[in-house]
Amino acid sequence: MGVIVDGCPADVPIDIAEIQADLDRRRPGQSRLVTQRKEGDEVEILSGVFEGRSTGTPIAMMVRNADQRPGAYDHLKDVFRPSHADFSYLAKYGRRDHRGGGRSSARETVGRVAAAAIARRLLQDRYGVDVLGWVAQVHEIDAEVDRETVTLEQVEATPTRCPDPNAAERMVTAIEQARSDGDSLGGVVGFVARGVPAGWGEPVFDRLEADLGKGILSLPACKGFEIGSGFAGTRMTGLQHNDAYLPGHDEPALETNYSGGVQGGISVGASIYGRAAFKPTATISSEQTTVTTELEATTLAAKGRHDPCVLPRAVPMVEAMILLTLADHALRQGAGR
Amino acid sequence: MGVIVDGCPADVPIDIAEIQADLDRRRPGQSRLVTQRKEGDEVEILSGVFEGRSTGTPIAMMVRNADQRPGAYDHLKDVFRPSHADFSYLAKYGRRDHRGGGRSSARETVGRVAAAAIARRLLQDRYGVDVLGWVAQVHEIDAEVDRETVTLEQVEATPTRCPDPNAAERMVTAIEQARSDGDSLGGVVGFVARGVPAGWGEPVFDRLEADLGKGILSLPACKGFEIGSGFAGTRMTGLQHNDAYLPGHDEPALETNYSGGVQGGISVGASIYGRAAFKPTATISSEQTTVTTELEATTLAAKGRHDPCVLPRAVPMVEAMILLTLADHALRQGAGR
Amino acid sequence: MGVIVDGCPADVPIDIAEIQADLDRRRPGQSRLVTQRKEGDEVEILSGVFEGRSTGTPIAMMVRNADQRPGAYDHLKDVFRPSHADFSYLAKYGRRDHRGGGRSSARETVGRVAAAAIARRLLQDRYGVDVLGWVAQVHEIDAEVDRETVTLEQVEATPTRCPDPNAAERMVTAIEQARSDGDSLGGVVGFVARGVPAGWGEPVFDRLEADLGKGILSLPACKGFEIGSGFAGTRMTGLQHNDAYLPGHDEPALETNYSGGVQGGISVGASIYGRAAFKPTATISSEQTTVTTELEATTLAAKGRHDPCVLPRAVPMVEAMILLTLADHALRQGAGR
Amino acid sequence: MGVIVDGCPADVPIDIAEIQADLDRRRPGQSRLVTQRKEGDEVEILSGVFEGRSTGTPIAMMVRNADQRPGAYDHLKDVFRPSHADFSYLAKYGRRDHRGGGRSSARETVGRVAAAAIARRLLQDRYGVDVLGWVAQVHEIDAEVDRETVTLEQVEATPTRCPDPNAAERMVTAIEQARSDGDSLGGVVGFVARGVPAGWGEPVFDRLEADLGKGILSLPACKGFEIGSGFAGTRMTGLQHNDAYLPGHDEPALETNYSGGVQGGISVGASIYGRAAFKPTATISSEQTTVTTELEATTLAAKGRHDPCVLPRAVPMVEAMILLTLADHALRQGAGR
Repeated sequence: MGVIVDGCPADVPIDIAEIQADLDRRRPGQSRLVTQRKEGDEVEILSGVFEGRSTGTPIAMMVRNADQRPGAYDHLKDVFRPSHADFSYLAKYGRRDHRGGGRSSARETVGRVAAAAIARRLLQDRYGVDVLGWVAQVHEIDAEVDRETVTLEQVEATPTRCPDPNAAERMVTAIEQARSDGDSLGGVVGFVARGVPAGWGEPVFDRLEADLGKGILSLPACKGFEIGSGFAGTRMTGLQHNDAYLPGHDEPALETNYSGGVQGGISVGASIYGRAAFKPTATISSEQTTVTTELEATTLAAKGRHDPCVLPRAVPMVEAMILLTLADHALRQGAGR
Repeated sequence: MGVIVDGCPADVPIDIAEIQADLDRRRPGQSRLVTQRKEGDEVEILSGVFEGRSTGTPIAMMVRNADQRPGAYDHLKDVFRPSHADFSYLAKYGRRDHRGGGRSSARETVGRVAAAAIARRLLQDRYGVDVLGWVAQVHEIDAEVDRETVTLEQVEATPTRCPDPNAAERMVTAIEQARSDGDSLGGVVGFVARGVPAGWGEPVFDRLEADLGKGILSLPACKGFEIGSGFAGTRMTGLQHNDAYLPGHDEPALETNYSGGVQGGISVGASIYGRAAFKPTATISSEQTTVTTELEATTLAAKGRHDPCVLPRAVPMVEAMILLTLADHALRQGAGR
Repeated sequence: MGVIVDGCPADVPIDIAEIQADLDRRRPGQSRLVTQRKEGDEVEILSGVFEGRSTGTPIAMMVRNADQRPGAYDHLKDVFRPSHADFSYLAKYGRRDHRGGGRSSARETVGRVAAAAIARRLLQDRYGVDVLGWVAQVHEIDAEVDRETVTLEQVEATPTRCPDPNAAERMVTAIEQARSDGDSLGGVVGFVARGVPAGWGEPVFDRLEADLGKGILSLPACKGFEIGSGFAGTRMTGLQHNDAYLPGHDEPALETNYSGGVQGGISVGASIYGRAAFKPTATISSEQTTVTTELEATTLAAKGRHDPCVLPRAVPMVEAMILLTLADHALRQGAGR
Repeated sequence: MGVIVDGCPADVPIDIAEIQADLDRRRPGQSRLVTQRKEGDEVEILSGVFEGRSTGTPIAMMVRNADQRPGAYDHLKDVFRPSHADFSYLAKYGRRDHRGGGRSSARETVGRVAAAAIARRLLQDRYGVDVLGWVAQVHEIDAEVDRETVTLEQVEATPTRCPDPNAAERMVTAIEQARSDGDSLGGVVGFVARGVPAGWGEPVFDRLEADLGKGILSLPACKGFEIGSGFAGTRMTGLQHNDAYLPGHDEPALETNYSGGVQGGISVGASIYGRAAFKPTATISSEQTTVTTELEATTLAAKGRHDPCVLPRAVPMVEAMILLTLADHALRQGAGR
């Protein structure tokens, strides 16, 4: 897996340990809750860094695949796995590499997370922006989280990455039950970006929420995105939903923040927050109906290692797309704008 | 308002009446439910069309503003309207044109809808793709719609653009009540694209659902997007959610379509469907708390013409973004791919 | 003709008279040397400007065609004009608008010149950059021009836009002779950008000279581009050609400037200069051998109005592409870089 | 050094030996004429290829630096080399990696040449396009080359890559003399693309000659580009320069080809040809005047290995940019166009 970060300004501190730490959060095998594949995911920096700082030129990074088992995917060569990209890739490209899902595998997010670790440093150091995600829901279990005060320590305190301890415990039980049932669960990741100054976003097409949404919806298994009040806000009235302005020091303050920190596609100086929906993992060990590549009926039951619930690992992926999108927009506010 | 369509292939029939028809659906003043501004929205084609067909070069279109009332916006010059883009635009650009919201006004979608009328013709003629939106929810009123069979005629049968007659009637009542209360309502637009062949979408970043989401989230007042099972799918298990493949003629068929017609970011040959959330209109005639541009407390009540519910007019806007996104992806499947 | 300028920062003074002045330099009919078509070229600003300054949103401008003569191009409908784009457009798009060359006509540069007038103001006000072009050669007549001191007044002093009065006079004679011979002449435009600070340019692909070259080579009739010493520099040795650095105040000074102000794709703080080659005008009144669209042999002699030498009007076109390219690169040097 | 090729269609044969062969042509140390650095340049394919063919997903390739000598560049840390990018990179980025020129080194063209080897296969197999470059001039020595018949074998027959044997011999002498003088020489690369069908190129900004020019002008040391008759054509008249059409079978034929195979920015079905100017190598062993990074006067004489003339190695670089540009334009002619 590799990634090239183009457009990172010069003189940003690049600490390989920071990058590795974010990769470790994404990595499978962190707990009994997630897949036990040993992806060492040791990141190597190939270019763009000199004496611990970015040079302004592209930063290439690479993670060598450590734990490949030849033959592990042979049984998938002639079958379309349900709700995977097997058939759609074949329809598009006329051929496919059946070994592990290729680009449609969540494994490709290694590159995103590595790149985002650099964006995180840039956003923190230059703009004071802080991005955090958490598991807000698994199946029918909803967590209570205060987006203004939740901390990374609270998120990382449990293997579920749910900072509501009560919900977290029930999530563990539900995920383990799903695993023993040969089934899988979906859920929702919540996120917040605190400290984003007013003025980021490029209407009309590159509105901040549009680019955040695109980034997050490009993650594997993501089926929905909302910002601010989202779908729930459609059940409010304008009088309830409008965010009254209050007198502030340099800028107006917001009495409420149903807008999610973005108005007219541009940040307003309040927290940007929202949620991302992830479907239940498609790979399950129960037997399922499907067809072969010759379109004959067959059945399939996943073997080996797989996540019964992608949510805990989806947290750093969601953070990654927010970090990359915000860094992109930050850099578009240049001398000229 | 103007728009330039670049990348339209040569020889697509361009019928100004078709474009006008879609613009008329977007236009205010179509019924008592929506704002009574007279936007004639007469479209003029300036380039790129010769003898009724596209030439392959950019197609410029323009709609002259017919019903401008000088002074109508003077009272908004020194105040930030709650949940509008007044402050965010000022924060970004240092100055703003207070007359009517400028680019942050839903009026800018004239250009999108005009461009999309051309995309609609291209998609229908060359690929057999048919795109339709409808009002699926207003405030607490949910409609029942069969996405596989719903027709344009059903959608256009009521001023709400809700094809469920029972729900439509209740929506009319709710919207009129909101207007008389000086309040406003939000809701949800449902959409479907039928006939999209397998193979459209460009992983990893330009997945089809990511680009659809970006397009729709760039619409004014849109706060959420979901594809397929969306947020509701997060409460299903993998066994329930996976779409079993069935033997088909040239391609596998899907027993269910919780995926929303996209797997791994690429279309699978099933209907692409989803939903978009629109917040309640920010402009309301009730008095609200806000601040002046000098950050002093004041109150504001909207005068004049405005929509108590944007949903009926949001339908052609959502269709527009789906049409433009699909046409873009269709054209990316070229000789080379 | 229309143009949309996207990315212009807010608060740039936009003076329609300045834009019109640059358009007037581009316009045919300025003297007996160039075509007598009456293109009024009255520019109209449609968006993006409020109270005389840019708002930061797209600036749309339009020039209505004033002097169209229906039927003037009818005799060209069924014939391919030599060294015009008639056949290549037909090969590409399958159909073409034969009326006046369409997009392949030099008339399309109206939009470029109008946009560049805004870039000129931005570059002058914010960066102190000054761009000037001139006619350096017509056919066999070479001018002597000091690129460091030449002024707009000197360029505009003669209808040839050649600031060397002796050469200018001979050019007039040559061009008038070509016209009476039913022939046409080519030549070279020289250009300089003075005041560009060190640090503009984005290697490896968007080197400053690469983007300048692309811009200029996209002009109609342009067949060559060189920067600094260009082709002549290939006959020098390294010892002659290297630009020695001299001690300077804040930056090193250059003893010579064979580099043309760009080293490694990035500006060095010295004048950026070069030359652009324009072929002799393809439209001539002498009879020429060609074929019909049915591929049968025929002959053609241009009727009506046409330039025997495009060079004087090419000057503002070359300036336009330099201005647009430099403004683009200036704005890419943002907070982040 | 690494490169990622995005957009390569699926099912293109990818032969690592072919890629290596092109890299070997670019590599230093091929003869006594060019620098003796041992760059093994062993290419490794990291992704996008399965069973010898492209999968349609990005192809990543890497070449590990084999012959690095730590300390070799220490003496360059505090000095600006004349006509190198040392100062301009520092001005742009505020810091630089002084070890070997970084991205401004011609070494970065490894990635371009590797990518172009894939484009070459695509263009040959799918479109019958054949691209060839050669050394057309070194210092004052001009070669005679027939662009329609010249072969790769003729080009590769001498270490100069000049297919005119008489000129080639004189070039060898001149280059060796320059080396022993501590000096360097520039020159011109000629190129031809045979077999390009009519219809490639995207006016107005992405004209084929504009994109070819940008690609070539982005190469290190390139100072000029011309297509067809180029600068020489400015001394012809329209009657001489116009390419008469002749009756052809399916398309008109051209009596002459001063246009260089492109009219109005679109290919016409004739050979595309032109020339690229390369300045004399900046690195020379003679002592030169320059300044330190503290802006104090000093002198510098290059030590170690360097090319007295870059022209022979520039041939595969020029070919690479033509191949990549043509492949890009080929793929833009899709189903839609």
